[in-house]
Parts: sequence; C-alpha cells; structure tokens
Amino acid sequence: MTVSVAPNAVAAVSEARLWQRLMEMAEIGGFVSEEGDTGVNRPCLTTLDRTARRLLISWAERIGASVTIDPAGNLFLRLEGEDPSLPPVLTGSHMDSQPQGGRFDGIYGVIAGLEAIEAVATAGIRPKRAIEVVAWTNEEGGRYAPGCTGSMSFADFRPMSDFDDIVDAAGIRYADALAEQMASESDLATRPLGYTPHAYLEAHIEQGPRLEVEGREIGVVSGIQGSRWFTVTIEGRSDHAGTTPLGLRRDAVQDMVRAITALNALMHDPDDVLRFTVASIRVEPDTSNSIARRVVFTIDFRHPDKAVLIERGDAITGVVEAAMTTCTATVHERFHALPVDFGATVPGAVAAAATSQGLSTITMPSGAFHDAQFMVPLCPTGMIFIPCRGGVSHHPAEYAEPVACANGARVLVQALLTLANS
Amino acid sequence: MTVSVAPNAVAAVSEARLWQRLMEMAEIGGFVSEEGDTGVNRPCLTTLDRTARRLLISWAERIGASVTIDPAGNLFLRLEGEDPSLPPVLTGSHMDSQPQGGRFDGIYGVIAGLEAIEAVATAGIRPKRAIEVVAWTNEEGGRYAPGCTGSMSFADFRPMSDFDDIVDAAGIRYADALAEQMASESDLATRPLGYTPHAYLEAHIEQGPRLEVEGREIGVVSGIQGSRWFTVTIEGRSDHAGTTPLGLRRDAVQDMVRAITALNALMHDPDDVLRFTVASIRVEPDTSNSIARRVVFTIDFRHPDKAVLIERGDAITGVVEAAMTTCTATVHERFHALPVDFGATVPGAVAAAATSQGLSTITMPSGAFHDAQFMVPLCPTGMIFIPCRGGVSHHPAEYAEPVACANGARVLVQALLTLANS
Repeated sequence: MTVSVAPNAVAAVSEARLWQRLMEMAEIGGFVSEEGDTGVNRPCLTTLDRTARRLLISWAERIGASVTIDPAGNLFLRLEGEDPSLPPVLTGSHMDSQPQGGRFDGIYGVIAGLEAIEAVATAGIRPKRAIEVVAWTNEEGGRYAPGCTGSMSFADFRPMSDFDDIVDAAGIRYADALAEQMASESDLATRPLGYTPHAYLEAHIEQGPRLEVEGREIGVVSGIQGSRWFTVTIEGRSDHAGTTPLGLRRDAVQDMVRAITALNALMHDPDDVLRFTVASIRVEPDTSNSIARRVVFTIDFRHPDKAVLIERGDAITGVVEAAMTTCTATVHERFHALPVDFGATVPGAVAAAATSQGLSTITMPSGAFHDAQFMVPLCPTGMIFIPCRGGVSHHPAEYAEPVACANGARVLVQALLTLANS
Repeated sequence: MTVSVAPNAVAAVSEARLWQRLMEMAEIGGFVSEEGDTGVNRPCLTTLDRTARRLLISWAERIGASVTIDPAGNLFLRLEGEDPSLPPVLTGSHMDSQPQGGRFDGIYGVIAGLEAIEAVATAGIRPKRAIEVVAWTNEEGGRYAPGCTGSMSFADFRPMSDFDDIVDAAGIRYADALAEQMASESDLATRPLGYTPHAYLEAHIEQGPRLEVEGREIGVVSGIQGSRWFTVTIEGRSDHAGTTPLGLRRDAVQDMVRAITALNALMHDPDDVLRFTVASIRVEPDTSNSIARRVVFTIDFRHPDKAVLIERGDAITGVVEAAMTTCTATVHERFHALPVDFGATVPGAVAAAATSQGLSTITMPSGAFHDAQFMVPLCPTGMIFIPCRGGVSHHPAEYAEPVACANGARVLVQALLTLANS
C-alpha cells in the first residue's frame, strides 16, 4: 500500500501551515538580538515551555490525536493505526531552546511530526501501526546539563533519579522543576515511562553547513558522533592583586589559561573533525582586584570515531593536572555518549522517500547530539536533516527556508508511512 | 610640648579595647570560610556598611567627638583642638571589604584612628589642631569599581558625578546606592565636600609579606605604586559546539586565552615587582554547548615605576588586539593612578614615633592602593603599616596580631600629635 498512499499524504503537507506554526511557536520565548535577529530563549520546565506544549496540544487535539505525558515529562501525540496492539512508529524532537537559541532547533522536528500526522489524517490514510509524535524533555541541557534527560530516561539509558539533584543557575533542582511541570499538566492523561517503538525517525535542521554548501535538499543521517562533557574545577587562593608577588600566588585564572592551552594541543585535529569547546567559565570571587581562588569551566568534546573519543577524552584529566603550576584541579565527567550508527532500515526509508520526491540527498553523520541517539538500542532509528542558513544554530540568526521545512516534512510523512506499514 | 605629652597618649592606647572593637566590627558581614577562617563581606553603601558606621559613631560620641558626613558619604569624627580655625590633621581609612575579605583591611585604620583620639582625650591632651578620623566611602571597589570613590571625590581627583552611573552586579547605580545611604543618615550633621588638611596619616595592614619576613614591627610607608585598571571585551559569535568546525568558529573564550597569554608575556618581570592580575571573567551565553559569543575580563596592573606603568599599560590594547584570531576586542581603561611619593614630613613623624617607642621599622612603598594616594596633592601624607600573617589579605585568612594592631595605634597617636602640634 505504501507506494500508492504515501503521495496523497505527501501532497497533504502544507508548507504554509507548517511555517505559520513555527513562527507562532517562536513567539513563546522570542526576543530580538543585538544584531536584529529573532531568537528564542525557551528553557525546559518553565512557564514558557508549558505554554508552548499547550499550543502544540491544541493543534493535536484538532486532528484527533490522543495526548499523554510520561513521568519524565515527555509529551506524546498519538494518531491511531489499524492495529493499536502493534508497537507504533515514533517521531518528534524537543521544544526547549538554548538561552540564545533560534526558532528551528528541536521545535522543527516536533512541528514537522505534527504536520506529518495531520497530513496522514487529512489524506484519510490509516497505516497499520499508530504514529506517535513526541516532544522530549530538556534536550538542550541549557538550563539543566546534561541534555536529553527526557529521552535518556525513556530509553533507560540512565535512571530518571540520576537527574534529580542537578540544579539550574538559580539553584532550582531538576526534580523540583519537573514536579512543578507534572503538577501543572495534571489534567493530561499519563503513560508509563518508555516502550519499544517499531522505529524512531527525527527531523531536524542540520546545524552545520554541509547541505547548504553542497546544494542538497535532504540529509540522510547515518549516525551521530559521540559526546563527552566534563566540568573542570581549579582551586587556588585569593590574595590582594596589588601586593602579592606573582611568584607567591595561587591564581586559578592563570592555571585555567594553561589548562585550556594544553587541552587545545591535546585536541588538535588537522582534519577539523574533532569538536572541542570551552564555553562556560565561572570565577570566584570574580572581583577585579582579588586573585581568583576558584575557576570552574566546562569541556564539550565530540568525535564520530569511538577510538578518538575514548583516547583523547580519557587523556583530559592528566593534561589538566599537568598544566597546574600552583593550583589543584579536579575533572568530573558529567556526560558520556559513544558514537551511534543508524544502520540501514530507517535511513533507507528516508533515502527512498526523498528520491521518490525528486529531492537531492547526502548521507551524512550528525555533528550535533540528538534524542535519536538514545533510541538506537531500542529500535531501528534515523534522522532527516534540512539545510539551515550558514550552518548556524544555537543563535538567533538560525534560519531554515519555508520550502526546506516543507521538504523535510514531506520526506518525513512518506518515510513514517513506509515504517508504519511495515 | 609634643615630646612630653605624646607618651601619655601612647600609654593611654588600649590593646584590649582596640582588639575588642575590631572583633565586634568583624561580626558585621562576618562569615566562616570553607577553610574555617572568619572572613568579612561588607560591601559599601549597604545596610551592613551603615550598621558598622552607626557602631563607630556610638563609640565616637562617647569620647565627645563630633560626627559629620560629606556629600560623598565620607564619615568624619572630629576631636577638637586648641584652635578650631586651624586646618586639622586627618587620619582614617575605609570600612568596606572585599566580597571574600578579612577583618583588618581598612577597618583597622579607622578603629586605630578612633583609638588614637580616644587616647588623646583620655590623656587630657588638647593639641593645637583638631584631629579628624575619616571613614572613606568605597575604597575596595568590590561592589563599585573603581574603588576610592570617596577619597577621589574629597580630593577632587575626579568629580563625584563620574561615578553616578557605575552599576553593581545587581544593576544598582552608584548614585542611587549613595542617595539611599545619605537618606538613611539624614540625622547626621553634614559638611561640604573636601578641604585642605594640615596632614593625612593612614594606618593599615601591610597586605604583603615584608614586615613578617624581615621581622619588623612598623612599616614607614614612603609612597604607593601606581595602578591602571582595564576592562577587555571580546566579541565572537555563538554557534553549536557539536557541529561547528573549529576552523569556522569565532570563539570568544579561545581568543581570551590567547589575549591573557600574550599579556602574561608583556607583563613578564624577572624581579617580580610588577603586579598583573586577571580576576574577573564573564562569558556569554555561558552554556557548555554554545560557543561563547562574548567574554568580558578585567586587568589590574600596578607598578611603583611611572615609566613602566605608562609604557606597558599603554601597550595592553595593541597586545590584546594582536592576539585576536577571529574575534574583535575593545579595551577600556576604567582607572589610572600614577605612583605617588609621600616625601619626608609625615613618614619622618612616623619613623620618629616608632623609634622613640623602641619599635623596629622598614621604610617601604605600598603595593596596595589606598585612599592616602589621593591626599598627596592636598597635604603632607603618609601611612603606617603593621605586619599581617603570611602577607595575606582580601581573604578570610587575613590576620594581624593584637600586639601589632596596638603598636600601630601607638605610633599613630604619637605621630598625629606631632603633626597636630606643628
């Protein structure tokens, strides 16, 4: 059936409706940057997040999708299939943003998933299996690091309780923020945590420059590079900046500079495939004339090759410790995810759908870290990438063309139907 | 008269009373550090600051000193002399602390000044000139940088209005914080801003290791090294930490590391006389997986040699700009004070007093920056240093022995009487 029905659903995808919904969602937490771009700051488990979820639910209910939430706060919109007893096909992404984020990262995959089931419903198609659209809790890790706590909990990659005591910048515990959200959504039907989907397919902006540079319309994602996140704490001593000879200091800022310089050497990669980032730095007491007694900084290290990820990641502690002159350093690894390979099933369905629609493709790994990563142990998994301008994301300038968004949704609905009928 | 009367006042200095008052003051904003030391966090123009000032006033009124405040919030305690028409001798220091400060920096000079006039009153001595004890507003610059705004305003080194729009970490304007304090002290008599004292003498802990290392009891301060404070802003671009090739990034943290490394080379000093400190760093958006779009860091540069201060300080902007690879940098100099020489008059009186009391001395420059710096253009100026343990200050472990505090107060009262009778 799929070959004949898919085109009807594909034709039922509305570029205008999809774009309108993206822009409406972008108003929730929206701001205009210093450069005049329209950004989004919508942290997870906040009133803004809940407002966005309610808007999504209102759209889903209009097309007859059933709405449930699980104990991790993940939100599910289910379009029933012919046989409700069969494991459904799962699609979706996340609705939270980076603090200085854009209008497409995450939310596009959720809205495209909704567009897909709406197109299926509009086309009057009833696939063999149900299709569920999920909005995962806290993918970004902007408010609560690490990210992907919702999908990690769903997939039992880590127990939910591991995240309870993470605090945000205001000192609010993750468990308390989640409990507040569950309470405010107590009117919604609940479901147990986790299940084994028939397949998982997530649509997302590329967040990199390849599709744009190579002029292709669809990225068939083959897998996701691995990520390791660390927190480095350097302990020195605070003394008077005007009187203390440099030779007698234990200056945490100076040893931080040495540590980052040494890490740059460790992470050097002529092929520019390795991703090494220090993006958060906290200094105490952070006053200009008192030498820093403590510095805490983060490391975000990623690579598609498991061997490189393990070898260089495991070397970080030694390199940081060796860089200390007068301070002491402790390195804590707060997140570790090995590279994943999506295999043939879902990428094959994506490639076939794109090709049948006359869209050009590249098969490529994902540089970014996605909820899809955690579905791999559960079921055949894949992702669809659409081009984003300049490869920019996590920034108000993040942008995807309306036609690119629609292309992604059309490939998504066809691939979902292929999987839902298999 | 001074030779005969001074010893009586010297004998009237009470080590116990001085220590008791220091410890009582230390409870206002006091805290216990992670290492178990008793520190003080008493920012200027706060309720804590005002509580400390009220306590000081209560002690001053008991000995018949008159209390006034000026428009900069500086607090004066006056012990009248034989001829009220003569310019008084001024002593004192500041009552604010660093955020992670100690129990002696600043407040010692104020309490020692009070002890000196109390000893003079107790000894029944009436010097020719009045002696005034001053508590200067915001010396530390911990809440509002630069520091010494009270003494700079008094000495007309800079107009008071220059400081109006400085904001603290909470965004509160200096002018508003000062207005709040003036309102809460509206019951106190006021005086105009500034006058020309006959002489100025400030007692302070050394904040360096020399007196302790060399086993001397009193530092006869010959002058103060110069200070230049800068704020460096590095502008980059925020992108996704997992997808953006390092070759395409504009990472403000990486260019900050290059800038500090280059500044370390510029500021290299084999004699370890130069003081170069980066102690405050703010990163935006400060989230671990978004590349830093902006870093703001401070530079505190000090040297006793005017030529070095000017030559290397003026080179900072060029060195920072040359260190940028993909970001842009702007350097703002927010404070500039050249080295000062106290000359012979006040240091001579201090040395004579110490010697006549059998106390060992060193003549030394001040590494720290003090309100005394701004009195130099107005009148003969000097300082008395007492040893502090390990040379540590701006830290909860800051400590001066009770006997060292008393030695300083005895030298202070004798020197003040010499100057007040001249």
